[in-house]
Amino acid sequence: MTEINLDRLFNPESLAMIGASDTPGKWGFIILMNILKGGFRGRFYPVNPKRESILGVPCYPCIADVPGPVDAVLITTPAHLVSGLIDECGAKGVPYAVVVTSDFSEAGPEGARLEREIVAKAAGYGMRVIGPNTMGLFSSKPSLHALMPPVMPLRGSVSMFSQSGNVGVQMLGWGINEGVGFEKFISSGNEGDLNCEDYLAYFAHDPDTRVILAYIEGVELNSRLVPLARRTSKEKPILVFKGGRTEIGRKAAASHSGSMAGSAAVYSSVFRQTGMVEAPSSQGLMDCAKAFAAYPIPKGYRVGILTRGGGWGVITADACEENGLIIPKLPEAQTRILDGILPKYWNRDNPVDMVAVISEQTYLDCLEVLAGWDGIDAVIALQGSARTADDFPETIRGTPELMAAVKTIRAFLNAQNDRSDPIVECMAELVRRTGKPFIGVNTCSAEEHRRSYLDYGVVSYPTPERAVRVLRLMADYGRFLGSA
Amino acid sequence: MTEINLDRLFNPESLAMIGASDTPGKWGFIILMNILKGGFRGRFYPVNPKRESILGVPCYPCIADVPGPVDAVLITTPAHLVSGLIDECGAKGVPYAVVVTSDFSEAGPEGARLEREIVAKAAGYGMRVIGPNTMGLFSSKPSLHALMPPVMPLRGSVSMFSQSGNVGVQMLGWGINEGVGFEKFISSGNEGDLNCEDYLAYFAHDPDTRVILAYIEGVELNSRLVPLARRTSKEKPILVFKGGRTEIGRKAAASHSGSMAGSAAVYSSVFRQTGMVEAPSSQGLMDCAKAFAAYPIPKGYRVGILTRGGGWGVITADACEENGLIIPKLPEAQTRILDGILPKYWNRDNPVDMVAVISEQTYLDCLEVLAGWDGIDAVIALQGSARTADDFPETIRGTPELMAAVKTIRAFLNAQNDRSDPIVECMAELVRRTGKPFIGVNTCSAEEHRRSYLDYGVVSYPTPERAVRVLRLMADYGRFLGSA
Repeated sequence: MTEINLDRLFNPESLAMIGASDTPGKWGFIILMNILKGGFRGRFYPVNPKRESILGVPCYPCIADVPGPVDAVLITTPAHLVSGLIDECGAKGVPYAVVVTSDFSEAGPEGARLEREIVAKAAGYGMRVIGPNTMGLFSSKPSLHALMPPVMPLRGSVSMFSQSGNVGVQMLGWGINEGVGFEKFISSGNEGDLNCEDYLAYFAHDPDTRVILAYIEGVELNSRLVPLARRTSKEKPILVFKGGRTEIGRKAAASHSGSMAGSAAVYSSVFRQTGMVEAPSSQGLMDCAKAFAAYPIPKGYRVGILTRGGGWGVITADACEENGLIIPKLPEAQTRILDGILPKYWNRDNPVDMVAVISEQTYLDCLEVLAGWDGIDAVIALQGSARTADDFPETIRGTPELMAAVKTIRAFLNAQNDRSDPIVECMAELVRRTGKPFIGVNTCSAEEHRRSYLDYGVVSYPTPERAVRVLRLMADYGRFLGSA
Repeated sequence: MTEINLDRLFNPESLAMIGASDTPGKWGFIILMNILKGGFRGRFYPVNPKRESILGVPCYPCIADVPGPVDAVLITTPAHLVSGLIDECGAKGVPYAVVVTSDFSEAGPEGARLEREIVAKAAGYGMRVIGPNTMGLFSSKPSLHALMPPVMPLRGSVSMFSQSGNVGVQMLGWGINEGVGFEKFISSGNEGDLNCEDYLAYFAHDPDTRVILAYIEGVELNSRLVPLARRTSKEKPILVFKGGRTEIGRKAAASHSGSMAGSAAVYSSVFRQTGMVEAPSSQGLMDCAKAFAAYPIPKGYRVGILTRGGGWGVITADACEENGLIIPKLPEAQTRILDGILPKYWNRDNPVDMVAVISEQTYLDCLEVLAGWDGIDAVIALQGSARTADDFPETIRGTPELMAAVKTIRAFLNAQNDRSDPIVECMAELVRRTGKPFIGVNTCSAEEHRRSYLDYGVVSYPTPERAVRVLRLMADYGRFLGSA
């Protein structure tokens, strides 16, 4: 099998859609809405023999009537029409058919027969089939949103293929919440023709893709995949979450995508050998995407921890030790500098406990000290949650003095929160300067995490456990790169 | 040691505060603001010799001048003043001193000496000390918010003690986000006098407390705690997250709270023996609180799973098997009913895969079928995320037809989302009828999770892994109850 250049699929100048509809509720309507709403930059041709135009876009009775060459066609008609449409598209010379239609191999033997038929027929025309039973694709450059759900992903450097459309588009949705942007996305569907390996191979060479994200249930761990993954991992990280790790999960996977998933241990071992990063959970996959897309990879497992004090430092230390990260003793040099910064009863060790000092400048000074310590490969910086004026709403009733105090505090907090956050700015600068990841743990709002990431490229999570799990996987990947 | 009735502490008719201040930034100001803002229902007496009133509340020069008996006093002055103040409070006959002031045993030998001194002195007056170095307490009935952070917890049936103030108040904050309400909360501080066992014993007999939440770093696993915990667990669940599970975590714990934490395995074993529920992570503690406070406890480990289709069912099945939950085969009876509801190619097993049928009525019908299956102890119901009008904002630009379509879809989605959610209503009803937990997994917004919980008492999580971990712990607790 040779590598397939999917440029025309992901960057089509001309896209047709057979099954385009103006009936709300039909997939042919919903996907069309998403394409229009997304502002696709190429030429777009709805095909529907019963309409002259749909939502103001001129409509063509059949693919043959579409003017000029067509790079890709979306098919959303009922399954029994697909085979004939493949002939029409083949005659037109369309190189890619994205078959959203379901009722193929996932639905039983008759569907499987039909699937084989359309793939064989397409092959006769030199046409490649995506799906069937795919939820579609997204591509950033041409602003192509050929997706079933109305998700509008952020643009970024992550590209994803997914053996579950639902899991895949959920990652796009979580990406919006977290600030993680996507370059390309494809739901691989039943993989009657093109499969995960093809998408991996394409993303591997795609200069716009810096991180590859994958949800897989079953791939053949064959002589093509292993060297491909290993070669790719040396260039860019492949983050994978594996469904069907257990027998009961495999059974469920077989019934929905028809894929035969192998033993979890075998997969994990192949992932390790090839440098692929296996996320421990669905949420963990997005957590990893966030850090790998923005941060340098640590060169080792040694972590410096800064805590304002209290149990969160303890929880972080526990999580590090339980996840195989190393918390080295604080050396003499750093201890001496911190002696000049922190109260006399500070703990003089790593985690550096600020013993409840709340001064922001002290926090920045401590970060600088950790940045100057060459015995660590990464920093986890625990912060508190900022107070906001909303903590003291104007609706509070009481004495005139209390009301005046509320006003004063609100003004103070508003002024404080209006300016950019010096801690986030400092962390961004330290990442650049040291080439090490500084991961924040912050109980602030999801929106604030998102803003730190989008505006400053600073990675932070709401719990230390999530930060630690990501850092461990980054360190593993760093070791793979180092051993390469 | 006898059990201590803490009614006057948690429901004070009269509360004094020594160290009350009107200087923003001082703890004596911040806590006072929180008390006023929270609308404390008892009599409140700020004490400060330099002020006649603070924020409109009359101020007293010393505790002796406060009229009538005082149930509890908050102390926020510098440490060197505390010993003398204990004498004054003792003379006044105050039964409880909540010493927020830090710089005691957590700060070194001299602080430890001072701590022993004030505790011994208090004992001479028959006064009990909370802290020192506590972040304060919250109590729902008297609307008492004697806390350092400006958090205003929701009211509910969960009571918490925490050996870390920061971790504890974060749970109150997460509770607000999740809809989990608290009855009482106390930060135990250095536990110079009253300790975790005392709070546990009190909450055990508190009729308003239905679920006990605990963050602990070190408690003596002594002959008092073990039978107390075991007896209490039979009445109400004790959910605990343990900090200092590892050597490095224990070292960090020793430096911040001075507590000597024992081996994690020993703790876990005591937790198991006494029916205490050990949460696996900080977030997991809140996840557990949410479910244990609202749902019946399952009688076993057998789970029915309903999925709309795709990878989420696979991920849930994996998580169940990996967490020791059982996914029984779907019996003939249920299969036959579902044959009449689902497309012919459905998977005929548990997880019940709706193979992408999106009809809401079909979903409700499937839930009913699972409710009628007596071979399972709980249900995990995977839902999709609802589309909202925001997915099709009015700012979309395009042809007049597109704009009109956007308007139509918005009106449709607004109408759909305005009515109450029939799936949530149905789950609430099925929980009541079957006495089994029906846990939702829903990629909707945090606010929607919260609303389902607050308005319907329906427990849902954003990922299946979180739902499964909670359910496993509920089943363990159910086994403990069954064996009792």
